[in-house]
Amino acid sequence: MNHKGILVVVSGFSGAGKGTVMKALLNQYDNYALSVSVTTRQPRPGEEDGREYFFRTREEFERLIEEDALIEYAQYVGNYYGTPRSYVEQKLAEGKDVILEIEIQGAMKVKEKIPEALLVFVTPPSIEELKHRLVGRGTETPEVIASRLSRAGEEAEGMEAYEYLLINDDLDTCVRELHQIIQSEHSRSSRNPEFIDRLKAESGTFLKK
Amino acid sequence: MNHKGILVVVSGFSGAGKGTVMKALLNQYDNYALSVSVTTRQPRPGEEDGREYFFRTREEFERLIEEDALIEYAQYVGNYYGTPRSYVEQKLAEGKDVILEIEIQGAMKVKEKIPEALLVFVTPPSIEELKHRLVGRGTETPEVIASRLSRAGEEAEGMEAYEYLLINDDLDTCVRELHQIIQSEHSRSSRNPEFIDRLKAESGTFLKK
Repeated sequence: MNHKGILVVVSGFSGAGKGTVMKALLNQYDNYALSVSVTTRQPRPGEEDGREYFFRTREEFERLIEEDALIEYAQYVGNYYGTPRSYVEQKLAEGKDVILEIEIQGAMKVKEKIPEALLVFVTPPSIEELKHRLVGRGTETPEVIASRLSRAGEEAEGMEAYEYLLINDDLDTCVRELHQIIQSEHSRSSRNPEFIDRLKAESGTFLKK
Repeated sequence: MNHKGILVVVSGFSGAGKGTVMKALLNQYDNYALSVSVTTRQPRPGEEDGREYFFRTREEFERLIEEDALIEYAQYVGNYYGTPRSYVEQKLAEGKDVILEIEIQGAMKVKEKIPEALLVFVTPPSIEELKHRLVGRGTETPEVIASRLSRAGEEAEGMEAYEYLLINDDLDTCVRELHQIIQSEHSRSSRNPEFIDRLKAESGTFLKK
């Protein structure tokens, strides 16, 4: 079967717990690599260059654009965000499934450029539950919560473009399901044209003339 | 998510071990139901009505056709074979994933009538391995082996029409993979339009006007 890695694009409602799911997935299984985005925004306290993001100047970022070194990029609240191409391509060639956690516009751009990318949308079981989680954190102002829920309204409009929906209700279940979804995709006929061709060629020699 | 069952159509090379895989799948997991075909051929020693097949006369079979009681049917070596509709529909409604083990022409007919059916093709790792297994049984004449390999040549031509390829190398691995493929399919966006509609409706109320 196909031993090339799959590029997995993960998006989802803000507050759906994507980050926690990704961290657990990478901890529990060793066939994944996490793509780190590059950005021009300032590092926040505790963030490390190369871990949360590659932090670059606008000049450096624009050079990456010119060199076609990014799979996709976008501006968001005055800053650039992008996905470095070389790391992704190298890990895929090594047979790793590469996880790319980006927002919906970026996901659509990736799918356009790389149609075999697998799009997964993480969601809580209901919007009521999303609201409950955002309120429950106790750290967000009512304005921030309202803004996130409003954004969820926009994000929901794009859900259908994702191939899989992943309900984050119980973390362990969610991580296991994500792993199974990605691994099952390796068995898709459309991802294994070489295998099909080989079997056709081998069995063709036995066809009755 | 979608709690309706998925109709899983399993085909594969004769000698690929489909029967053994299906038996193990049904033994190990309780969310599956096996669709039993109806046929006009004579029962072989040891076969039981309702277990291997429903054995019917030609008149009875043709009445089933007239009543549209079959999802698909075909004639093969002078006998009818068909898939009873009522059992399949009842089990799917109960939330069971229904396994239908049929040959490729029947599979194509099912997919045409029921586009959401999931098509899985079982194959050994190579045709050489298939030949090895057929010869290794020691029960088949060289003519039978040649005829099966020739048929494999025809069957390989249809492989691409199947959504998933399942390599039967190690039985336990194969059964687990099949289970994961089917369960992952339940998370497909295209199988969950009601869930998407509900989330859109719920989150739409938070959209900024």
